[in-house]
Amino acid sequence: MKIGVLGTGAVGKRLSSRFAEVGHEVSVGTRDVAVTSERDSWFAEHPELALRTHAEAAAFADVVLNATAGDVSITTLHLAGADNLAGKVLIDVSNPLDFSNGYPPMLFVKDTSSLGEQIQREFPEARVVKTLNTVNNTVMAEPKQLGGGDHTMFLCGNDAEAKTVVTGLLAEFGWEDIMDLGGIEMARGMEMYLALWVRLYPAVSHGNFNVKVVR
Amino acid sequence: MKIGVLGTGAVGKRLSSRFAEVGHEVSVGTRDVAVTSERDSWFAEHPELALRTHAEAAAFADVVLNATAGDVSITTLHLAGADNLAGKVLIDVSNPLDFSNGYPPMLFVKDTSSLGEQIQREFPEARVVKTLNTVNNTVMAEPKQLGGGDHTMFLCGNDAEAKTVVTGLLAEFGWEDIMDLGGIEMARGMEMYLALWVRLYPAVSHGNFNVKVVR
Repeated sequence: MKIGVLGTGAVGKRLSSRFAEVGHEVSVGTRDVAVTSERDSWFAEHPELALRTHAEAAAFADVVLNATAGDVSITTLHLAGADNLAGKVLIDVSNPLDFSNGYPPMLFVKDTSSLGEQIQREFPEARVVKTLNTVNNTVMAEPKQLGGGDHTMFLCGNDAEAKTVVTGLLAEFGWEDIMDLGGIEMARGMEMYLALWVRLYPAVSHGNFNVKVVR
Repeated sequence: MKIGVLGTGAVGKRLSSRFAEVGHEVSVGTRDVAVTSERDSWFAEHPELALRTHAEAAAFADVVLNATAGDVSITTLHLAGADNLAGKVLIDVSNPLDFSNGYPPMLFVKDTSSLGEQIQREFPEARVVKTLNTVNNTVMAEPKQLGGGDHTMFLCGNDAEAKTVVTGLLAEFGWEDIMDLGGIEMARGMEMYLALWVRLYPAVSHGNFNVKVVR
């Protein structure tokens, strides 16, 4: 499958290399290819991950993944271009974190809406699936390295076929317990859980944790 | 230990009978003893749980537990009386749920504060410990009946000694994995998790579930 990962931070790097590892063709989107290449030699060391503009990466892809910070996600997706997202599965792993008052962050949208819904509304022809936002990038990419993989990933979205595609990709990463919570408005629950995650992080004293829904 | 449980709903009943079962003296607080007795024969069938006014139950107790709905918790605690709460461990299991727009509920306080903090601020001499708010009353009282007890309970509060007392009571119920998240402001995370809980509930199709923090 052709995957376009938007974002060159820790999440974008880890997921793009993991997608390549499990056999996909990957293009990574950034705002300015020359600037990113100069700032960060990592991409020169990973030529299998084609570094392109956001628009080029999205145009290339069958499945687009938003790995940008929540506060720039919609801006970035506009750079990718609504036309390049139309009809495509758009995996949203972002969180609406607001660090302006320090740690723990607050959420800039919650309860009455969610970032997942904002993205779906802004790009109505994209088939948005929210997932992976409840763990750090290490756990996202290799869930079996934590507790043998015996923990839970959530997803939600309005398009059943898109959720099937994403479920398949998650399974390739090693996810086994995948719970479909329903339509994209379920992103409110998945994002508000972050308020607990950011408080578990200091209690656990590292970020490689997740919850298992025991039921 | 003398335990005063404020609230005669499902949570108050289940926890008060469980406290009696593990050997404590229990008084259950209600607004009007005669009205509650007439409406509900359950208390006549459980004479070991002394039904009293909120003030009497709180005055009797060493440890007070708030098992009222979030939107009436502070009002109820005022009926119990600040003097009757002063110096005592006050276990808060309530959630700031707002059902005015139907299901799933929203939260009437979140992110910048929490109901646990509001209660601590309103009753500064009480030693508030937030816990048990992340599961239904069945799981609260008998955690081992779910997955052999292999799941997590959170608590937070400003008073270390009070948290030790509450940890002991939780252990009597059967809780084994108890995570102390820190001061009472950590209640923000524990309460905002409810936004996920109320969306897991339909996905799981029953309320007897909990999360285990795999770390």
